[in-house]
Amino acid sequence: MRDILPGEKHTREQLISVIRTQYLQRGFQEIETPALEDITRLTSGQGGDNEKLVFQVLKRGEDLESAKANDESLADLGLRFDLTVPLTRFFATNQAALPKVFKAIQIGPVWRAERPQKGRYRQFLQCDIDIIGDSSILAEAELLSASLAALDALGLADATIRVNHRKVLTDNIAGLGIGEANQLSAMITIDKLDKVGIDGVCKELATKFDDQVATRAAEWLSSLNEQAFPEELQDLVSSLGKHGARLVYDASLVRGMGYYTGTIFEIQHPAASSSIGGGGRYDSMVGKWAGVDSPAVGISLGFERIVELAKLQNSQEPTLALILASAEDAETGLKMQAEVIASGKNCRLEIQQKNFKAQLAALAQLGVTEFANLEPGAKTLGELKIRTLD
Amino acid sequence: MRDILPGEKHTREQLISVIRTQYLQRGFQEIETPALEDITRLTSGQGGDNEKLVFQVLKRGEDLESAKANDESLADLGLRFDLTVPLTRFFATNQAALPKVFKAIQIGPVWRAERPQKGRYRQFLQCDIDIIGDSSILAEAELLSASLAALDALGLADATIRVNHRKVLTDNIAGLGIGEANQLSAMITIDKLDKVGIDGVCKELATKFDDQVATRAAEWLSSLNEQAFPEELQDLVSSLGKHGARLVYDASLVRGMGYYTGTIFEIQHPAASSSIGGGGRYDSMVGKWAGVDSPAVGISLGFERIVELAKLQNSQEPTLALILASAEDAETGLKMQAEVIASGKNCRLEIQQKNFKAQLAALAQLGVTEFANLEPGAKTLGELKIRTLD
Repeated sequence: MRDILPGEKHTREQLISVIRTQYLQRGFQEIETPALEDITRLTSGQGGDNEKLVFQVLKRGEDLESAKANDESLADLGLRFDLTVPLTRFFATNQAALPKVFKAIQIGPVWRAERPQKGRYRQFLQCDIDIIGDSSILAEAELLSASLAALDALGLADATIRVNHRKVLTDNIAGLGIGEANQLSAMITIDKLDKVGIDGVCKELATKFDDQVATRAAEWLSSLNEQAFPEELQDLVSSLGKHGARLVYDASLVRGMGYYTGTIFEIQHPAASSSIGGGGRYDSMVGKWAGVDSPAVGISLGFERIVELAKLQNSQEPTLALILASAEDAETGLKMQAEVIASGKNCRLEIQQKNFKAQLAALAQLGVTEFANLEPGAKTLGELKIRTLD
Repeated sequence: MRDILPGEKHTREQLISVIRTQYLQRGFQEIETPALEDITRLTSGQGGDNEKLVFQVLKRGEDLESAKANDESLADLGLRFDLTVPLTRFFATNQAALPKVFKAIQIGPVWRAERPQKGRYRQFLQCDIDIIGDSSILAEAELLSASLAALDALGLADATIRVNHRKVLTDNIAGLGIGEANQLSAMITIDKLDKVGIDGVCKELATKFDDQVATRAAEWLSSLNEQAFPEELQDLVSSLGKHGARLVYDASLVRGMGYYTGTIFEIQHPAASSSIGGGGRYDSMVGKWAGVDSPAVGISLGFERIVELAKLQNSQEPTLALILASAEDAETGLKMQAEVIASGKNCRLEIQQKNFKAQLAALAQLGVTEFANLEPGAKTLGELKIRTLD
């Protein structure tokens, strides 16, 4: 967790605005869920390893005393570790007030009790879009199309999307000679490919299963480059028209979460060493809370990585510092500030400091572009002598 | 805690944008602090009764085991209950990178474990501005001026601000015959005036102190209407020029927090039964973390109440629903969607449902203003027959 200083916060809000606009333009609707969810929901097996990283919130009052006395769980709430579990709970709760096909935007912080390491934060922002209620590939196509448009608007037109399909993946794993009961375990190993390479993955598969499986896996993983998209993904690629060229088939793509049931995707960018977003289809999770399944698919932009990569036009607005001799000039100062703002500039009030040169240098650092001293007796904006600051 | 549905979320984001713009125009700088702070900081006596309402986050791993074994505190972190305590910690941490006079904007959620009741939420949004490093009344004047401008921009020009000064208040309490050691206790009682009336306050003062105190208090509290501003507040009122008329002197205004040291304010609106914001000067809190005091003053808008009151022009943008016969039209649909967006309209893709009339009615509910069916063979926007939806 960390503080966000003014310069970075300004950039972040600009980027959020760009992303939000792209999604709103496509008729997606923004919602917000609470940061805290019931701990039982956050540890129900949907979130994979992230469930171990939940910040748990202590019960209160009598509930806490009773939990201590009976050696029960001390926590009843937890901070959400992603926006997908809360979204499906939201949909189950509010379905009657939502359209049949619900296209959701969520932009908000999530929390994971990670060990502190470079580039990983324990609170970070995610920007998700999801479509619930559409089982057709139009949903996948629209999510990918909207994400690519957002990435373009962020100056990240080099981003590409790796795609796989859970059915194809499980078929491939079965082809290695691994039975259905062990597929999840095999996926966890294959998911480490980026980190440990083919040798590392095969070694682990040999330990978990046998040498034959490892040999077959080595052969399979070595042949993956430049494979054509399998049938299950061809319609999706062609539906994106010329943008389809930005999809890459990756038969070894796993995505950690247990809840995916179909297409899975991961966004990559040449300037980033790890993925900058991802998602997939999860047709069974809504049913966990709503009783009845609804088809669902979502994609998440990893905002913290995007902040480091994105290139925006600097949109700092012209700002005038109006320098008062003392607080006694507050009335005139505030009146003139209102006039400057009405004229279309930002206006920061300052009281003149002893070291005026240092004060001006600090103002330039803040992004102030002009300054004017409020001379005694000056009553209107026209009387100010405005000077450029550089 | 509650879910925020699309319609309300849209309004909230518009209101946030209005508030943010007003503050940025005055050269305030936005920052963000983590939702979680050290539990010791959140229970250090700065936050008054709010400290009892902190959601505490359970220690993890060995720390938790050791805490259980040694009967120590089970929590090491907590969710912030306001934005002021985190701001002063932020300032102490990051002072070297901040301007001498730091004018901060914070817009973010805070959490309090309140008993559920109408209009009170356990997670709610606050919009704060604070000025650290300016001991002059320019700081108070600018905060009030900026807040009034923000309220005007929200359509709440009827909002007024009750003002008091902690020094005047403690003088008044001393005048009732209450010694310095008991002043805080007396303040807590006087703070209930809105809820229990003069009789209720005097009864409690009689119990806490004696009948003489209660009699003097009854006389004092009955004479408060339309009192002139005391000397300590006159400069502030006149510095606001014509906006000074929107300040009201309230000698009985207390504000719960222990940390206030000077001017205190509370925003009210005729359509709201309780305050819609407030703040004050707290010159001693930064010193708690930084070692050296810095003068500081802040004001917070209670966003949840403002959402209920604010009146904005409806700025829903024109949105076209493009109706596809099936997902097989995804490619053409996505291509045309991009063209519609480039032409300046939002565009929501839909697959035609069996009950088309119900589908159109649902789209109108969503704020969709026009629709067009993607006829077989249509390839360009010009071939679409666009119809108004109402």
